[in-house]
Amino acid sequence: MRVLGVDPGLTRCGVGVVEGVAGRPLTMCGVGVVRTPVEADLGQRLVAIEQGIEQWLDEHQPEFVAVERVFSQHNVRTVMGTAQASAVAMLCAARRGIPVALHTPSEVKAAVTGSGRADKAQVGAMVTRLLRLGAPPKPADAADALALAICHIWRAPAQNRLQQAVALHASKGRTA
Amino acid sequence: MRVLGVDPGLTRCGVGVVEGVAGRPLTMCGVGVVRTPVEADLGQRLVAIEQGIEQWLDEHQPEFVAVERVFSQHNVRTVMGTAQASAVAMLCAARRGIPVALHTPSEVKAAVTGSGRADKAQVGAMVTRLLRLGAPPKPADAADALALAICHIWRAPAQNRLQQAVALHASKGRTA
Repeated sequence: MRVLGVDPGLTRCGVGVVEGVAGRPLTMCGVGVVRTPVEADLGQRLVAIEQGIEQWLDEHQPEFVAVERVFSQHNVRTVMGTAQASAVAMLCAARRGIPVALHTPSEVKAAVTGSGRADKAQVGAMVTRLLRLGAPPKPADAADALALAICHIWRAPAQNRLQQAVALHASKGRTA
Repeated sequence: MRVLGVDPGLTRCGVGVVEGVAGRPLTMCGVGVVRTPVEADLGQRLVAIEQGIEQWLDEHQPEFVAVERVFSQHNVRTVMGTAQASAVAMLCAARRGIPVALHTPSEVKAAVTGSGRADKAQVGAMVTRLLRLGAPPKPADAADALALAICHIWRAPAQNRLQQAVALHASKGRTA
């Protein structure tokens, strides 16, 4: 299973591709950051994020896209930008028929470190170890994107059943 | 000047096209609602909004798109969906090189009723009068979309100068 993890943000959108199955060593296929200029207008920044995500989808052809679920307890201005960037990532995936899974930050931390309250350094250290990298990926957004992909691979069986159930329900709704 | 107003929402996205210039009678070119099923998954809903907005852009070829600026003082769950739907509308416009303007709800209310604290009924009544319609557009999201377009036409001179300044600044940044 190949998964593209996306840590959404307007200024820096972390992206990371991981391949593997639960219980086997995982492989990193790529990691990076889609950046957009702070001074550009919002519409242009969303277009740049779309182009960046499309390139990652083209190049890596993931079977799943895992996006961080956006919460509102953070800074309000940041949350709006994060919600908008995540919308673009979900749109790009869904347009290609790639299932999108959302994972909360604490689910991701718990998956890779065993604790939902782990700090950035701990997540970076575990991503480095699990993917057998020479050093923690920088910036933190890139490491977080890889952690999201790992989380999805390990949580995937349950998520997949849920997504199938939702899809079945939706198709029944359309034919009813 | 032809403007597409978008009142963003995941379940109902109001859309309305108004043509005219400040100081002359305005004309409504179209009004409607892009709906997405509550039971569909988020990615699919964003794809449906994209398809809906694209149809409106194709059909009416607006020169500006005016989108309601999303605030966070409302219900948190709703705000996330609204931010995501607005991102899709802005993306569709910016991808075509159509300038996107954001107006706050109180700017829109003040523009069409004279008061930033007007209620839905008052906005609906003024939209009906200004566009010489037989009855207020239903649902309220559709009327709000028309009010956004009217607001943009009336506020356009200042907005246009601002957008030009921003575009100039961005292009200088790229060539620096």
